[in-house]
Amino acid sequence: MKDKNYNFEIIPGGVTTPAGFLAGTACAAIKKADKRDVAVIYSSVPAAAAGVFTLNRVKAAPVIISMRRLAAGNARAVVVNSGNANACNGEQGMRDALAMAAEAAVVLGIPADEVLVASTGVIGKKMPMDKVLPGVRAAAGQVSPDGGSLAAQAIMTTDTYSKEAVVQLALGGRKVTIGGTAKGSGMIHPNMATMLCFITTDAAVSAACLKKALQHAAALSFNMITVDGDSSTNDMAVIMANGMAGNKAIEEENLDYIYFRDALTAVCTSLAKAIARDGEGATKMIEVKVLGAATEQDARLAARSVAGSSLVKAAVFGNDANWGRVICAAGYSGASFVPDKFDIFLGDVQVAGDGGSLEFSEELALQVLQKDTVTITVDFKSGGCGATAWGCDLSYDYVKINADYRT
Amino acid sequence: MKDKNYNFEIIPGGVTTPAGFLAGTACAAIKKADKRDVAVIYSSVPAAAAGVFTLNRVKAAPVIISMRRLAAGNARAVVVNSGNANACNGEQGMRDALAMAAEAAVVLGIPADEVLVASTGVIGKKMPMDKVLPGVRAAAGQVSPDGGSLAAQAIMTTDTYSKEAVVQLALGGRKVTIGGTAKGSGMIHPNMATMLCFITTDAAVSAACLKKALQHAAALSFNMITVDGDSSTNDMAVIMANGMAGNKAIEEENLDYIYFRDALTAVCTSLAKAIARDGEGATKMIEVKVLGAATEQDARLAARSVAGSSLVKAAVFGNDANWGRVICAAGYSGASFVPDKFDIFLGDVQVAGDGGSLEFSEELALQVLQKDTVTITVDFKSGGCGATAWGCDLSYDYVKINADYRT
Repeated sequence: MKDKNYNFEIIPGGVTTPAGFLAGTACAAIKKADKRDVAVIYSSVPAAAAGVFTLNRVKAAPVIISMRRLAAGNARAVVVNSGNANACNGEQGMRDALAMAAEAAVVLGIPADEVLVASTGVIGKKMPMDKVLPGVRAAAGQVSPDGGSLAAQAIMTTDTYSKEAVVQLALGGRKVTIGGTAKGSGMIHPNMATMLCFITTDAAVSAACLKKALQHAAALSFNMITVDGDSSTNDMAVIMANGMAGNKAIEEENLDYIYFRDALTAVCTSLAKAIARDGEGATKMIEVKVLGAATEQDARLAARSVAGSSLVKAAVFGNDANWGRVICAAGYSGASFVPDKFDIFLGDVQVAGDGGSLEFSEELALQVLQKDTVTITVDFKSGGCGATAWGCDLSYDYVKINADYRT
Repeated sequence: MKDKNYNFEIIPGGVTTPAGFLAGTACAAIKKADKRDVAVIYSSVPAAAAGVFTLNRVKAAPVIISMRRLAAGNARAVVVNSGNANACNGEQGMRDALAMAAEAAVVLGIPADEVLVASTGVIGKKMPMDKVLPGVRAAAGQVSPDGGSLAAQAIMTTDTYSKEAVVQLALGGRKVTIGGTAKGSGMIHPNMATMLCFITTDAAVSAACLKKALQHAAALSFNMITVDGDSSTNDMAVIMANGMAGNKAIEEENLDYIYFRDALTAVCTSLAKAIARDGEGATKMIEVKVLGAATEQDARLAARSVAGSSLVKAAVFGNDANWGRVICAAGYSGASFVPDKFDIFLGDVQVAGDGGSLEFSEELALQVLQKDTVTITVDFKSGGCGATAWGCDLSYDYVKINADYRT
């Protein structure tokens, strides 16, 4: 479909849809047998690259290594494993992450420092390198233009479905494609960089513009979702741009940059919403729109706080039109607003007005609450700024999934 | 029992144990029939008073009124209701809260501006004043020296038991008593003033010293507990000191002040821990101790973050010794520490050392996790500062209780 407001088109596919990108996967039995748990995503030609990373003080070894390597502004491959986070493993963890990259580099025939590393899974367990390295070797040896969807599966942990998004746009008469995949369903929370996300594009974009565009996109997408308030040690989103589309390279913030940035934001938003919907134990997605705020920061703070409130999430699970919890969460968010002025809507049903209760149809509110996506709108009526955040409801299954994760 | 490190003794009782304090209650059927839902706590002589209040931007009418009245530094009574928060009710809410105080003042024969007001319950519902006012009248008309424990029951909402604490100490040869009651089991989160708490004492203390001592006590007790990360619109803790013990009035930060402050802190800590243990759906209490931090602020941030992590709470519920979630929560807390240095203990069982995993007995760890109180200790090994926070596990029943609260 062509988005009517934008310059891009959403098409099926994943990280191998952009020209020149290949992916391979393997079952290394890192945590479970018979689950794909290693993926290698590879550009057949050199590529500019950028990333955003977790703000957690405790960063997993692959995060530290990928951050360092991206300082150079280029990367041609990412090697990823699920089932073990390689976090809190000290010097051994660093050596293991470097060995994963080196193994992929040898098979792919590229310099090791152009390989990024990402891991996701249990924190504080040594990597079973006797399983991991053969897995990396197999995955790197099998890279193909059809490998995207299996790569999306290989990075999953508690995710119940794989997440991919692709958009196409024209830049100076050339067709440019941006493809991405992401994983995440627990330890997901706004105040951070993101979860695991890998994006490929055949656009020609400088590393500096790529980084700026990714930061913009992450701020409006990954940083606006929350599942449980826990920011992980392993979050990262990286993008590689190999220029095979042949467009005039984007090296400054011109119109092409804006088109590219907005298309990238669409990919990231699609993936972010897929993560929110797949939140651990979620039965529905919650979309929180804040309007009429004095500043964008106020709108963002309030939207994320409402989307993250355990009490709001439990009320949505229970189909309870408890708007008092919504404004309570906005109230402790740090956002500035006038308590006597807000309106609140559940879907199209207004449930509070001018800072207080009003008569509304519980039946119509119930219909909204029973939908697959529940939209909550808070209008501060104090300015022209807005923001949207996404989350999910809090169900018995969230507790069940997380009460015994290690075993 | 006499606390061996302190100058005070813990005894049974509640808010009417200190000399000169009376309490009365009534069943006004505000939300449920046959539940005591109105309480009046009253000092038979004039009293100095102080309070700490929610930092939520949206403050309930009784919070606003009590804050204003305490500016004068004295109060002789508090009128409280459960079942309705009187929040987000606009001007009508303010009028209703003032009417509650006025009604109590008439019956007690004291000036209306010496009566504080507190409410707890559903947000955004008009107060049923046709029920509330007769309830206030009845409660104020029945104040007695034996009314403390019924008052503790009348302020409960989803609490499963009432919470009271009393300490006695000697100040200049006089026996001084401090008694308190608190309610709270959901919408409980550190970054705030507190929940509902009423403290009485027969000590003679100036309003300024009372406020300072209460702020100190709240910082170490109520502000170190978390149940669900939601700070309410109605939180408050107030203290009234009527001087009937006859001690030399505490008007500066001398040794008597320190003794009094520490005894008050003991009352508040006892009530705070009772709230954490009674967290909605909780099956056990979690006590998080952070040691070896460079600053007290680092220790506090980390302790509260670990106690508040949904993933830590779910792991404790499931008896899963998942220390990676503990250090992850410390890592995103904003606390400064060296990732390669921390040790983690579950009870006496060390589960992580020098920033990484180590062999430990899962069986011994399981024994710790199955206890009524699970103690998690994180040692940053970087300084001499520490802090303790309290929370509870996250169970299926938390979801159940909050999925349909209004009905």
